Amino acid sequence: MVEKDRMHIPLKRAWEILRQNLAPLPPEETPIEEALGRTLAGDVISKRNVPHYNASAMDGYCLSSAATAGATPSSPVHFPPGEYQWVNTGGDVHPRFDCVAMVEDTSPAENGVLSVASTLVAGENIRPLGEDVFLGQVIAREGDRINPALNSLLGAAGVGIIRTLPLPRTLYVPTGDEVIPLDEWIKTGSPPAGMVGDSNSLLVKGYFDLWGLPLDRVPRLPDDREVLKTFLKENRDKYDLILIGAGSAKGEKDYAFPVMEELGVPLFRWLLMKPGRPASAADLGGALAVNLPGFPMSNAVILWSLVYPALQLLQKGDFDEEKVLSEAIGAKGEGEVSLLSSYSSSFGREEWVRLKCAEIGGEKKAYPLSSGASALWSLSETDGLALLPLETAERAKGAPVKLWFLRDINWEDRILFQGSNDPGFERIATFVKKRGAEVVMRSVGSLGGLAALSRGECHAAACHLLDPETGAYNTPYIERLFGDEAAQIARRVVFYRRQGIMVRKGNPKGIRSVADLGREDVSIVNRQPGAGTRVLLDYLLREEGIAPENVRGYEFCSATHFDAGNRVLRGLADAAAGIKSAADALGLDFIPLAEEPYELVYNKKDGDHPGLRSLLDALGDPGWKSLVDEMGGYRWEG
Amino acid sequence: MVEKDRMHIPLKRAWEILRQNLAPLPPEETPIEEALGRTLAGDVISKRNVPHYNASAMDGYCLSSAATAGATPSSPVHFPPGEYQWVNTGGDVHPRFDCVAMVEDTSPAENGVLSVASTLVAGENIRPLGEDVFLGQVIAREGDRINPALNSLLGAAGVGIIRTLPLPRTLYVPTGDEVIPLDEWIKTGSPPAGMVGDSNSLLVKGYFDLWGLPLDRVPRLPDDREVLKTFLKENRDKYDLILIGAGSAKGEKDYAFPVMEELGVPLFRWLLMKPGRPASAADLGGALAVNLPGFPMSNAVILWSLVYPALQLLQKGDFDEEKVLSEAIGAKGEGEVSLLSSYSSSFGREEWVRLKCAEIGGEKKAYPLSSGASALWSLSETDGLALLPLETAERAKGAPVKLWFLRDINWEDRILFQGSNDPGFERIATFVKKRGAEVVMRSVGSLGGLAALSRGECHAAACHLLDPETGAYNTPYIERLFGDEAAQIARRVVFYRRQGIMVRKGNPKGIRSVADLGREDVSIVNRQPGAGTRVLLDYLLREEGIAPENVRGYEFCSATHFDAGNRVLRGLADAAAGIKSAADALGLDFIPLAEEPYELVYNKKDGDHPGLRSLLDALGDPGWKSLVDEMGGYRWEG
Repeated sequence: MVEKDRMHIPLKRAWEILRQNLAPLPPEETPIEEALGRTLAGDVISKRNVPHYNASAMDGYCLSSAATAGATPSSPVHFPPGEYQWVNTGGDVHPRFDCVAMVEDTSPAENGVLSVASTLVAGENIRPLGEDVFLGQVIAREGDRINPALNSLLGAAGVGIIRTLPLPRTLYVPTGDEVIPLDEWIKTGSPPAGMVGDSNSLLVKGYFDLWGLPLDRVPRLPDDREVLKTFLKENRDKYDLILIGAGSAKGEKDYAFPVMEELGVPLFRWLLMKPGRPASAADLGGALAVNLPGFPMSNAVILWSLVYPALQLLQKGDFDEEKVLSEAIGAKGEGEVSLLSSYSSSFGREEWVRLKCAEIGGEKKAYPLSSGASALWSLSETDGLALLPLETAERAKGAPVKLWFLRDINWEDRILFQGSNDPGFERIATFVKKRGAEVVMRSVGSLGGLAALSRGECHAAACHLLDPETGAYNTPYIERLFGDEAAQIARRVVFYRRQGIMVRKGNPKGIRSVADLGREDVSIVNRQPGAGTRVLLDYLLREEGIAPENVRGYEFCSATHFDAGNRVLRGLADAAAGIKSAADALGLDFIPLAEEPYELVYNKKDGDHPGLRSLLDALGDPGWKSLVDEMGGYRWEG
Repeated sequence: MVEKDRMHIPLKRAWEILRQNLAPLPPEETPIEEALGRTLAGDVISKRNVPHYNASAMDGYCLSSAATAGATPSSPVHFPPGEYQWVNTGGDVHPRFDCVAMVEDTSPAENGVLSVASTLVAGENIRPLGEDVFLGQVIAREGDRINPALNSLLGAAGVGIIRTLPLPRTLYVPTGDEVIPLDEWIKTGSPPAGMVGDSNSLLVKGYFDLWGLPLDRVPRLPDDREVLKTFLKENRDKYDLILIGAGSAKGEKDYAFPVMEELGVPLFRWLLMKPGRPASAADLGGALAVNLPGFPMSNAVILWSLVYPALQLLQKGDFDEEKVLSEAIGAKGEGEVSLLSSYSSSFGREEWVRLKCAEIGGEKKAYPLSSGASALWSLSETDGLALLPLETAERAKGAPVKLWFLRDINWEDRILFQGSNDPGFERIATFVKKRGAEVVMRSVGSLGGLAALSRGECHAAACHLLDPETGAYNTPYIERLFGDEAAQIARRVVFYRRQGIMVRKGNPKGIRSVADLGREDVSIVNRQPGAGTRVLLDYLLREEGIAPENVRGYEFCSATHFDAGNRVLRGLADAAAGIKSAADALGLDFIPLAEEPYELVYNKKDGDHPGLRSLLDALGDPGWKSLVDEMGGYRWEG
């Protein structure tokens, strides 16, 4: 049984327990051919001089310096044959000579006599042995990582084998009846509901590669207590660390911790961390076992927070608490950003936040990406990671947040787009990148984008907002939001796109127009307030005289066309307003309603921003335009 | 024949020629298991929804939301058996239901009837399919590098194979009769003069590993024109890039370029760069051939400047001139430092400078390490690299220099030591590192160290300076240099060490005392002005009445005890003043002359610097003290 004070603990307490329970493995002897990237476990002393002989630094003649005393161009000294020797640059200078005369300072006279026109000192024009490295010199120190130059230097210095930090032997075993091997998962066109591909194996393997550490993997074990027990018994003496994937929570099939408890000494369970709570560790006798939660973000968090520190303890008996997480995540540096939206954190837990960044008006800003334990895309997409302390409850908009960057960000070339979601326009990001710049795209709806632009929270927005009074698009909204500043706003129609109703293939509910959305047997999924598509839907419903409260599902919102279409596709709703390209991509039927201009909006003063310039230029890129054309439902001219 | 305007060219011109002559290879199909670190050659679109089913976000009951209308705790709605279904968190929600009621909001009544006490909307408590990633969503973009999260996401999204930038096939072939295979070189206790180990192979391999690119290597070819020609003919169709090691200059055995010229179209020869001048390239009609100079620093420079850009052209048809060098050297970032000493650069050549850095008084400073083409240690040891422009002639002390950092430097924890060279004291750096700090050690002699300290150019110095007037050590010098500030100077004797005369084993010249250094048949190697050892020697010579001009070799200086001892060992001089530990390490005989205090000196105000604190603490480290004891010639008490 794990003691009560070892359950629901903060990360630092878990580190303390790991420190108490892990002893460093002995250093290894590593041949230099395999040494790149390894860390030295002791100082390295050169076994020879480099160069190991006295090499001439010139083409010329080896001489005895004493004999050149007083030589000048007007009164040269003469050397009979045998008292000098020709040498090429890099050639060996025989010990009976102690200097080299440049060929330009000499001239051959009769009978093989050499005239030397300059007085030389001992050692002159000689690259002495040991010039680069001395025999006995410390050429690298404990803790140094072997880079290409040091690796090569070790060879030059006659050092063939070095003592390095050991590579702990780690085994990763995924568990769970629901887990399908990845190759099978990929081959299966439509896997059964409730099953998941073993993509965590690649996540774990990826971090071990990043850390330069070996990892053995095995296929997943079923949800069978005895199977897991036997497996751990068989492997605990072969490995230093065993990572058990999933089975970490309290469900009826969550065997991992009970088995770890049975086989060894439980060290702790449950972290005060989000994601990453259902983690635990036990000393199995030979190996340390760590249970990694099954959700990918939780899995990653425990790899960083527990597994990497444990590996450090196994390698060198210690780690630097200030640096260990930054190293574990492979941070490119750290910095501070201010939040573009408020963030609710769980008080009493440390919380990992994924952030997307841009510099606006000279200030580095960021918005949080999806924070779920199951969200993998946002980890792949994130610019950086923040770890909010235990006592954080709410971070207000504008509050500073410290983060580790996972990418090298070119702040000057990057812009933030906030606005209406469009799958065709989204594809432009690649074409902006080809132009050496970057656009970060955040879907906040048409109105949300304009509002963000008016508050200086983005570089560009896009909208398709119908004004019910005038039937005009966008202009009335821009005038209302920007007031006197409206003249400073630049606008450019990106394309015209077809809006309509997305319904399941074959239109099983026989939906023909907006009027059908008021039917008792029809449910919709709506878009969020401020989305241009919602504005359009509201306008059309009003024209049909249908009150929103009479539309089933009106209050349930999706943030993108694809999300809404997906819900229709899977039967969570019968219809959704959306654009043709999304319907086409999802194989939905589409009932056209209107064509609308999708307009890019930005401040004229930002027109010189390299990111915005690249975006505007990319709008004319034939590659992007043909991608959009393929999607369907777009026209370039109104 | 290479045209005249393609010889002795600046790097940018070489890049231009490479651009004109290299076409990108086609992208590759890469299985995701091998994709980590690879770069995407196109956008990646998700092949499925993640999750691919509607998963319950709660433990509870699947229901139809329409039937919950109006339900409250005081008037619950009742569901007969068959109209609800239990679901675990993560379980599949059957399409005939559209929401999940939390178990806390329900209560079982009689006859299997379920009471639900809350009104639900469609989708409530469901993690809808596609919540993480949609079918059809762009999940990664052209140019993205595959990190662990993205690699795993590809698997989850059903993407098994991706299009990546190709991996060019590269072959490295060292040449030269003087080159010994590295394993043989290491085994050979004392290789013949004029021979070198093939350590460049490790340098080349190391950079390819760093770049994540494959490299084939073969044993060295002899200096034989026909052999090289046959070899290139056989391999030019099997590789995209062939790197020929050495044979790049104008000597009689430098066949590489003539053979390249004969077999293909020469592209350019000689760069206006230092080191790295003797580089060339030719189009062999299948492969591009690049000739890498044999000196290690030149070799590295050409790897960065030509080989990496050529690989970029082969991979993607282009490279960013602003970033390519930084990427090639594996820079951790860039910055600016001011020079601690002036630097003479070669006007008309771009020059690579290796710099060692520290922050002093809030300013980042650096001194240049050995700049020779043959110096490998200084590349291994350097903190960063600067590339001085063509038109630079002299950079004055204090001038700003931009550099790329090759290490992550903890500026706050790092101190710069300048002062007297001592092989025992040098070993303390490792023990400072163990304390989380760092000391950079520069040998400038006792007087040089005190002067640097007085000018604020280091954090600590060390000296052993005998005052001939008083016979006292150090104090008179400190008082003279620091004047009224002398009271602000802290001093600590590190140890006492034995000074004497180092002579070859067996003392062939029969040197018994300083008096013998004035003999006609005896030559010495001296230490640089300001070195404590030189001050001592001068004092002892004066006592013996020997004028410096009567000492042979007096004017030739070494900067360290080891360098001086080495010159004696190899017969470049008969004797040198130096300490016993250096003589012992080199196997020299030693004639003791004096014992002297070796004293650490620093500003009291810096006493709180974490680096200095660690250094002072390390002076008491038993590990370090036993290392020093083993060296011999030291005492801890005066």
